[in-house]
Amino acid sequence: MSALKGLFISIEGIDGSGKSTQARRLADRLRAQGHDVVLTREPGGSPGAEQIRALVLEGDPDRWSPHTEILLFTAARRDHLERTIAPALAAGKVVICDRFADSTRMYQGLSRGDLRALVDQLHDLMIGREPDLTLLIDMDPETGLTRALSRNGAEERFEAFGADLQRRMRAGFLTLAQEFPDRIRVIDGNRSPDAVASDVFATVKGATS
Amino acid sequence: MSALKGLFISIEGIDGSGKSTQARRLADRLRAQGHDVVLTREPGGSPGAEQIRALVLEGDPDRWSPHTEILLFTAARRDHLERTIAPALAAGKVVICDRFADSTRMYQGLSRGDLRALVDQLHDLMIGREPDLTLLIDMDPETGLTRALSRNGAEERFEAFGADLQRRMRAGFLTLAQEFPDRIRVIDGNRSPDAVASDVFATVKGATS
Repeated sequence: MSALKGLFISIEGIDGSGKSTQARRLADRLRAQGHDVVLTREPGGSPGAEQIRALVLEGDPDRWSPHTEILLFTAARRDHLERTIAPALAAGKVVICDRFADSTRMYQGLSRGDLRALVDQLHDLMIGREPDLTLLIDMDPETGLTRALSRNGAEERFEAFGADLQRRMRAGFLTLAQEFPDRIRVIDGNRSPDAVASDVFATVKGATS
Repeated sequence: MSALKGLFISIEGIDGSGKSTQARRLADRLRAQGHDVVLTREPGGSPGAEQIRALVLEGDPDRWSPHTEILLFTAARRDHLERTIAPALAAGKVVICDRFADSTRMYQGLSRGDLRALVDQLHDLMIGREPDLTLLIDMDPETGLTRALSRNGAEERFEAFGADLQRRMRAGFLTLAQEFPDRIRVIDGNRSPDAVASDVFATVKGATS
């Protein structure tokens, strides 16, 4: 699987879809095969980006306007890309990132107004890079929400938007997969974690063989 | 001077040019004439923007890349505009802002590479608003640097770039004034604070009469 060297994989999906679990399992499995893997996440993933993450995710849901929030997420992404992702890829490592720009396209682009075009323009201007492969863990919105609410996480201010948001995000992610068919692969997340992990691994292998 | 109602004035110039002093004196003088004045500054000027300011200005000079820094300044500006400046202007107040987008055009656009075009594109996309009137306090770069270094301020990480930066910024601001002749008025700052203040006040009156 030398095709994996320098591969940038993102894992996306609604809250509670099991993204973080699957990212970790994929990292473990690739490491067991001898790959050098960097497992990271957004927002955050570098010291500066983690500080921006804290600014964005803590406090009242209306603490930042949608526009300011998009700028802060993009600043964090730029730092993460420069300080963590790009150096790892240049060194031939596999990068697995729990959320990347697709999450901004969905959460900032759709949740508080139709800002998708703005998100895309800002991405093109300031980031200009997509993952090589994106695994979209598709999940029943109600099941995802129940799972997400049973955790205590710093992302609670987003999850506070509730079930309707989950349904819209799920539909949005599936539409996004149609928009980027070469990059995004949809994985059925409504199965046991073992079954999903096997599918994730097979998809990565299939995409790089 | 009812023409002042809802007027957005920025004050720009190199470090140590006396911007903050002149902004305060102008605010005092307009208030003494009965105007409702909001005196504010960048980066900062709203609770959220002040937190972003702290992230940007503290720490090592290379803590953030130029691109990330531009994004953080723009995020702070967006918050400041939405939460402080725009509501004040809508209420008919005079807003006097110590630095605005021109400082980003200079400090982020010129100091660490030629990023001016990127700064402008990001401004157009995410801010889209200029002051009605900008007072550029022009100052001999060495004098300005000496003054700036005699203070203890949170901006020290920018001032650490030194005399050559001051000279380039001074030249850049003067070029900017030629680029925006309708908006930017150059004030000779190499005089006593009283003389500069009189000129600033006369310029505001002249621009709005």
